Amino acid sequence: MTDFQWTKSQFYVPEGMIYLDGNSLGPLPLNAKDRVGASMTDQWGEMLITGWNKAGWMDMPRRVGDRIARILGAANGSIVMGDTLSIKVYQALSSALDLRPDRRVILSDTGNFPSDLYMAEGLIKSLDRDYELRVVAPEDVYDAIDDDVAVTLITEIDYRTGRRHDMQAITERAHACGAITVWDLAHSAGAVDVDLAGANVDFAIGCTYKYLNGGPGAPAFIYVRPDLADTVRPALSGWLGHAAPFDFELNYRAGDGIDRLRVGTPPILGLVALDAALDVWDRVDIADVRARSIELSEAFVEEVSAGCPALKLASPSDPHARGSQVSYHFEQGYAAMQAMIDRKIIGDFRAPDLMRFGFTPLYIDVDQVRAAARTLCDVINLNLWDDPKYKTRQKVT
Amino acid sequence: MTDFQWTKSQFYVPEGMIYLDGNSLGPLPLNAKDRVGASMTDQWGEMLITGWNKAGWMDMPRRVGDRIARILGAANGSIVMGDTLSIKVYQALSSALDLRPDRRVILSDTGNFPSDLYMAEGLIKSLDRDYELRVVAPEDVYDAIDDDVAVTLITEIDYRTGRRHDMQAITERAHACGAITVWDLAHSAGAVDVDLAGANVDFAIGCTYKYLNGGPGAPAFIYVRPDLADTVRPALSGWLGHAAPFDFELNYRAGDGIDRLRVGTPPILGLVALDAALDVWDRVDIADVRARSIELSEAFVEEVSAGCPALKLASPSDPHARGSQVSYHFEQGYAAMQAMIDRKIIGDFRAPDLMRFGFTPLYIDVDQVRAAARTLCDVINLNLWDDPKYKTRQKVT
Repeated sequence: MTDFQWTKSQFYVPEGMIYLDGNSLGPLPLNAKDRVGASMTDQWGEMLITGWNKAGWMDMPRRVGDRIARILGAANGSIVMGDTLSIKVYQALSSALDLRPDRRVILSDTGNFPSDLYMAEGLIKSLDRDYELRVVAPEDVYDAIDDDVAVTLITEIDYRTGRRHDMQAITERAHACGAITVWDLAHSAGAVDVDLAGANVDFAIGCTYKYLNGGPGAPAFIYVRPDLADTVRPALSGWLGHAAPFDFELNYRAGDGIDRLRVGTPPILGLVALDAALDVWDRVDIADVRARSIELSEAFVEEVSAGCPALKLASPSDPHARGSQVSYHFEQGYAAMQAMIDRKIIGDFRAPDLMRFGFTPLYIDVDQVRAAARTLCDVINLNLWDDPKYKTRQKVT
Repeated sequence: MTDFQWTKSQFYVPEGMIYLDGNSLGPLPLNAKDRVGASMTDQWGEMLITGWNKAGWMDMPRRVGDRIARILGAANGSIVMGDTLSIKVYQALSSALDLRPDRRVILSDTGNFPSDLYMAEGLIKSLDRDYELRVVAPEDVYDAIDDDVAVTLITEIDYRTGRRHDMQAITERAHACGAITVWDLAHSAGAVDVDLAGANVDFAIGCTYKYLNGGPGAPAFIYVRPDLADTVRPALSGWLGHAAPFDFELNYRAGDGIDRLRVGTPPILGLVALDAALDVWDRVDIADVRARSIELSEAFVEEVSAGCPALKLASPSDPHARGSQVSYHFEQGYAAMQAMIDRKIIGDFRAPDLMRFGFTPLYIDVDQVRAAARTLCDVINLNLWDDPKYKTRQKVT
């Protein structure tokens, strides 16, 4: 059983703040600064170039990947770290398209994070073939999968509403139609129970600065189904994906398995911070996190329903149909969120009218969640957002 | 006039070590650990998500890019940071090809860093058009530029021998033939006098962990000629290259100028370390660095010629025809380099037979360089490399 009092003690959150934006950027793990500092003085400083072997920097993308694999129900050696999520989208999508050379449809939905769509758009323009990026409503994804679809490019959890796709069902349907699946786990990894092996997912990608608390701009990950990994062609064929990078051959030969999805030199400081952030997971069961996150979001919804019944839930009311966040529609949502932030309750706003709150059991408890919900009701009921002070505030990222 | 005693005081190099491998990984700047630490506690810890604006994280890729622009003779706003050099090769090359849609030849040379060739190979395979990656000998590049060439993809300084291309002449020739130039500055940035604006270069890319001392896996940079920047199509069209990333539109619209070459979320810890490393450059003139580096490499060559005349220089003997390193052919070079390393003189080895030494005036002086050369002669003359101890040593990255 995960000890959430202990996990809470492992993070720094400013005094008096209730941080419900861990779905954007997780807080600082208390062990991260010393670990990064030591990697700078004891490794970079003392070992210099030999740190690539002596400090194990060269293997970090695999080693850290294995730690994330455990959280995602994936086998060791099936995930490698590096780059950003957008780059990983490109790698997964282009590798996936390659596996279905006779098909021309990439299926996605309007709830996908825009960058995934942008990367797909850019890839299609580059390829200059008659690919179609077919973007349907999230609820139509399942039925839209047919024998024309080469690849489904779907984000499991909607960044705005938290709506959760049925990964297992969509993957099954895609496979039945002969399509390849690419799952974006940006809002899933560390938030919900994901079972990549069990769901037979082909490719998965994600970032690590949200629920995994790796820090601003922490490296992304990519998963490839182990039995596919030796056959995929990595579009971004960089030297660390080569079978023998230090032979400096003039021609590319893809490395074995997941290693061929490596590209350039790994970002060590970011990986060290992420590695420190993952320590807590050695004593965390994701099933406990999921159960607790449902408890937290239900408590929030319950308080808001009681205190401010007019506020319209934008998220699915069934907690099993959403990830670890809830959002509300509110026309003055931007100003209202500023009023919340002034009260040290941090959520965020997504245009046009969404107030978004993330629930992260590792460092947020039910009392904080209820207090936050009551403050939200106060702000709404007192029309605080109508104060010119909030109307004129600059928009925050 | 640059004060190289002062610059030397700004870096940590282990006691007694002569570090001639700053062309692979620069040493730790003394200010870097505290700066990264503060960015973790005072920014990530205290500001959390608001750090993207309050701490200026969102603008860092441009701000740090401007600092590098100054070292490379480029205008403010013409360089942006992010990703790895391999990714930047892909962006530059695909954007460049796009500017010459009727041509099919990418010209490179066998002295290019293999990853550049791998990325080009991968891009060509993706595009599935009849592109040809034409790889000639370095000395044939100039004459090989003809009206068929769409893009020249050339690394200015050979990673093995230090041979330096004439950037101005090749760029002029390329432009005269209607080709676009992509220059890889991995071994140039911070090492030699580069004048991107003066040479009228179209695209340039580079890493920052060598002569710029940004740390292991520090972010890469990309330069686009200002008058081209608004016309290039970024193949890797990620959300931070969008004209309005936080509007979350479903379709991609390229941002203005160099911003469209941004892709995903910037790696903040790596950028902060690099930013700290660049402080020293506020008091450094690259012309002084170049003059001093010639002095250092000439001193090394002179000592080796005197003490070990049989050792064959692999680098150009004219210091103006090479970058900031020299290499020697030596059949037992790997073992001999191990013997050097045991004597705390750190160079590196590149197959099949190159012993490579980098000269970095910011923290290496001429006495150290002469001492290193004499030790090299001792190792060679005493046949130390023949000792079974060195024969059996594992290969170091």
